[in-house]
Amino acid sequence: MRIETTPVPGLLVVHLDVHGDNRGWFKENWQREKMVAAGLPDFGPVQQNISFNATAGTIRGVHAEPWDKYVSVAAGRAFGAWVDLREGDAFGTTFWTELDPQTAVFVPRGVANSFQVLEDGTAYTYLVNDHWSADAVYANVNLLDPALAIPWPLPVAEMSDKDRAHPVLADVEPMAPRRT
Amino acid sequence: MRIETTPVPGLLVVHLDVHGDNRGWFKENWQREKMVAAGLPDFGPVQQNISFNATAGTIRGVHAEPWDKYVSVAAGRAFGAWVDLREGDAFGTTFWTELDPQTAVFVPRGVANSFQVLEDGTAYTYLVNDHWSADAVYANVNLLDPALAIPWPLPVAEMSDKDRAHPVLADVEPMAPRRT
Ligand SMILES: Cc1cn([C@H]2C[C@H](O)[C@@H](COP(=O)(O)OP(=O)(O)O[C@H]3OC[C@@H](O)[C@H](O)[C@H]3O)O2)c(=O)[nH]c1=O
Ligand SMILES: Cc1cn([C@H]2C[C@H](O)[C@@H](COP(=O)(O)OP(=O)(O)O[C@H]3OC[C@@H](O)[C@H](O)[C@H]3O)O2)c(=O)[nH]c1=O
Repeated sequence: MRIETTPVPGLLVVHLDVHGDNRGWFKENWQREKMVAAGLPDFGPVQQNISFNATAGTIRGVHAEPWDKYVSVAAGRAFGAWVDLREGDAFGTTFWTELDPQTAVFVPRGVANSFQVLEDGTAYTYLVNDHWSADAVYANVNLLDPALAIPWPLPVAEMSDKDRAHPVLADVEPMAPRRT
Repeated sequence: MRIETTPVPGLLVVHLDVHGDNRGWFKENWQREKMVAAGLPDFGPVQQNISFNATAGTIRGVHAEPWDKYVSVAAGRAFGAWVDLREGDAFGTTFWTELDPQTAVFVPRGVANSFQVLEDGTAYTYLVNDHWSADAVYANVNLLDPALAIPWPLPVAEMSDKDRAHPVLADVEPMAPRRT
């Protein structure tokens, strides 16, 4: 297991050990002690979500919620893309990488998260450190905004009407730091 | 979301809300606040594991480790079976149910866990409240022990040599309570 920084401050790529055998494979997808020792924030997850995506090309995002996320795949593969929507100099900075079973990403609060699945039947799973509520304040940006220039590998299959309606980057209200 | 007891003391079945749409589905697989309010122990996970099972009929278990588990599927379906290996009157008590995306199970320390996947490409994911180590003391029982009479739905496809070597129930050393 090995943790790598990215151009987006606090966005970390985690390279996981995957043990293959006759049955398939096994991974410690999150392991608090080892990962904190290796540089992951001790983020304290309280919720685990799973989204199942039937068709290759399905796309979700780009969503910044008021909590941290630790994202990965349990089956299949995805192309992940992130956009910094925090107030400040890094606003608009992007990063993308493939999420295969070996690769997880820690997404700090205020960095917007998205993915396109590369295989039918991709299961995407993530841990978050606050409980979701329908009326939490989100910052969202449009997946297809040309200013982001995200190189989605496949033609878009399914997406939600909500995601279709998100503003382009130029119209996004930056996310303020957490009030303390 | 709704929690149900079983004949095995402390083994709980969790019926999850799954939101389907054009993209596939979404679920809160674990949500600390709501689930604790509904009766799940506040078990404090520190590790999330994923095992991917390529072939329908693949079988893993029956393993009691010295920590609690919260088990579920992220893709596909499995048949789950549990055997109480704790010292005391309930030793040998069994329970089984199908693990589909709607169904998770809380498995207390000392209750042995197993499953057979019902579809190719089933991803099984679980949270545990202590860090695994190769030399932790386990109690294991043989998946195929006729005394357990677990009605595996499919012929056995793949299994590990380690699982093939586990003792029958009559030869299992019961697991002692946690020393405090
Ligand atoms: C995020 C979330 C959603 N839901 C419900 C609301 C809807 O009925 C359904 C799907 O919700 P969407 O907002 O459409 O989710 P999605 O577009 O998949 O986005 C989610 O996954 C990708 C993540 O990037 C994103 O932050 C997260 O909101 O699930 C919950 O019950 N709990 C949740 O935590
Ligand atoms: C459980 C575990 C295993 N491993 C490694 C050891 C092996 O290289 C590989 C597979 O381990 P197995 O012991 O063969 O796992 P498996 O038979 O799949 O059993 C696991 O999943 C089903 C669970 O019931 C069981 O408790 C758990 O041990 O993963 C880890 O690195 N971390 C772990 O937490």
